[in-house]
Amino acid sequence: MQTPDQLLGLIEDYLLGLELSGELGDLGDSMRYALAGGGKRIRPVLCLATAEAIGCEPERALAAAAALELVHSFSLVHDDLPALDDDAERRGRPSTHIQWGEAVAILAGDALLGEAVRLALTYPSPAVARELIEATQGMIGGQYLDITHSGDLVELHRLKTGRLFAAAIGLALEVAELPGPEQAPWRAFAEELGLLFQLVDDLLDRDGHVLVHGVETTRRLADEAAERARLCLAGIDADTSVLEGIVESLAARTN
Amino acid sequence: MQTPDQLLGLIEDYLLGLELSGELGDLGDSMRYALAGGGKRIRPVLCLATAEAIGCEPERALAAAAALELVHSFSLVHDDLPALDDDAERRGRPSTHIQWGEAVAILAGDALLGEAVRLALTYPSPAVARELIEATQGMIGGQYLDITHSGDLVELHRLKTGRLFAAAIGLALEVAELPGPEQAPWRAFAEELGLLFQLVDDLLDRDGHVLVHGVETTRRLADEAAERARLCLAGIDADTSVLEGIVESLAARTN
Repeated sequence: MQTPDQLLGLIEDYLLGLELSGELGDLGDSMRYALAGGGKRIRPVLCLATAEAIGCEPERALAAAAALELVHSFSLVHDDLPALDDDAERRGRPSTHIQWGEAVAILAGDALLGEAVRLALTYPSPAVARELIEATQGMIGGQYLDITHSGDLVELHRLKTGRLFAAAIGLALEVAELPGPEQAPWRAFAEELGLLFQLVDDLLDRDGHVLVHGVETTRRLADEAAERARLCLAGIDADTSVLEGIVESLAARTN
Repeated sequence: MQTPDQLLGLIEDYLLGLELSGELGDLGDSMRYALAGGGKRIRPVLCLATAEAIGCEPERALAAAAALELVHSFSLVHDDLPALDDDAERRGRPSTHIQWGEAVAILAGDALLGEAVRLALTYPSPAVARELIEATQGMIGGQYLDITHSGDLVELHRLKTGRLFAAAIGLALEVAELPGPEQAPWRAFAEELGLLFQLVDDLLDRDGHVLVHGVETTRRLADEAAERARLCLAGIDADTSVLEGIVESLAARTN
């Protein structure tokens, strides 16, 4: 079993060597800029760790894991635009529209989504791309709730953050071609992990669940989600030790 | 064989009844607004006519034809944004960002692309979605050349306009699961038709090829492309009468 740091190395190398569609031309420079921002790559690492736990070579899941990171990157590029969150910085660097201009950033976001779909379509089964695009649509629905201040905050964060997070696991299941009935405990784990991630996010940002339930209750809800995630893993007949470690680090994260 | 008007009726009904991903919520209203703008639906009609000529029920190609129209619609919504072409009107109505605001228009464009991919993924073979996304990336590459005023005008229009146009035929081939070797004459026809469409577009808009070659030469190039398109069809053992009619109307169009 590879450690999360080893899996992070795999995905960083893969993203660095990624060949974009040739017809995108120099637009690729702004896409690579947006992708290179670093970050913890938690979604692709989770995807690779899940694949390995199921008994699938992590390398086989690299295209799906990278596709997920590209969708995440596309969402950040468009989210940072002046018409949306108007963020001039992203992870300590100028955000994509500041560095490359607004028009290029809009197209770079579009093309990152397109490349993500292309990567997901490199698998023989269309189920991988279906998993990716369903989660993407949910995430966009969450962004819409965010900018229109409609819907409740919990649903907003479930869609905007939780959908891509849970897809990290769903994509690994589809890459490994795990039959439907065997997917159920993994998908239950994905839901709990997505919820855990959002709850801790809300605790760190002091929004979402914290605004609804307060800090203490949100912390308790997070601990309960982590406990249920552990129980899901305990019920799965596989070496889930690396995933257990990811649950711990998500529950304890401070940034 | 159904006439282009009958095929147009099929696609209009299909788009009207299209169910969007539930998680998009009210964002769907702006997407439907963008889609309802009318237009000649030339790409989906061409897709359905090609499917029927191959001997495939046009109804089977409806999801692919609609997917192509959604990609076209996504490209117009983003193209009209203030940071790109800054067009306040589209087909005599306020463009999407004027009607719904810029932030919603950005997300509506994203979600139209996502729904297009979802539709293309309703087929058993991933080849349909692959055809769609390759053409989409080419089209985005063309938009990039357009906003950066780089590359030559002919290449710009081949990508920005021609790629989606040729995909109308390519999608029908993949829906009908026509084996690779039998696709060659159809794809040659698609290239000529895409070129014809761009040349006439350039004649009507007085740009692209007209700026490079002048009006007379561009008209001659268009007539030659139409003639080669006819020859491609003549060499195909199928009832291509409806497609021949489409070649004539594209060559003669005045708007």
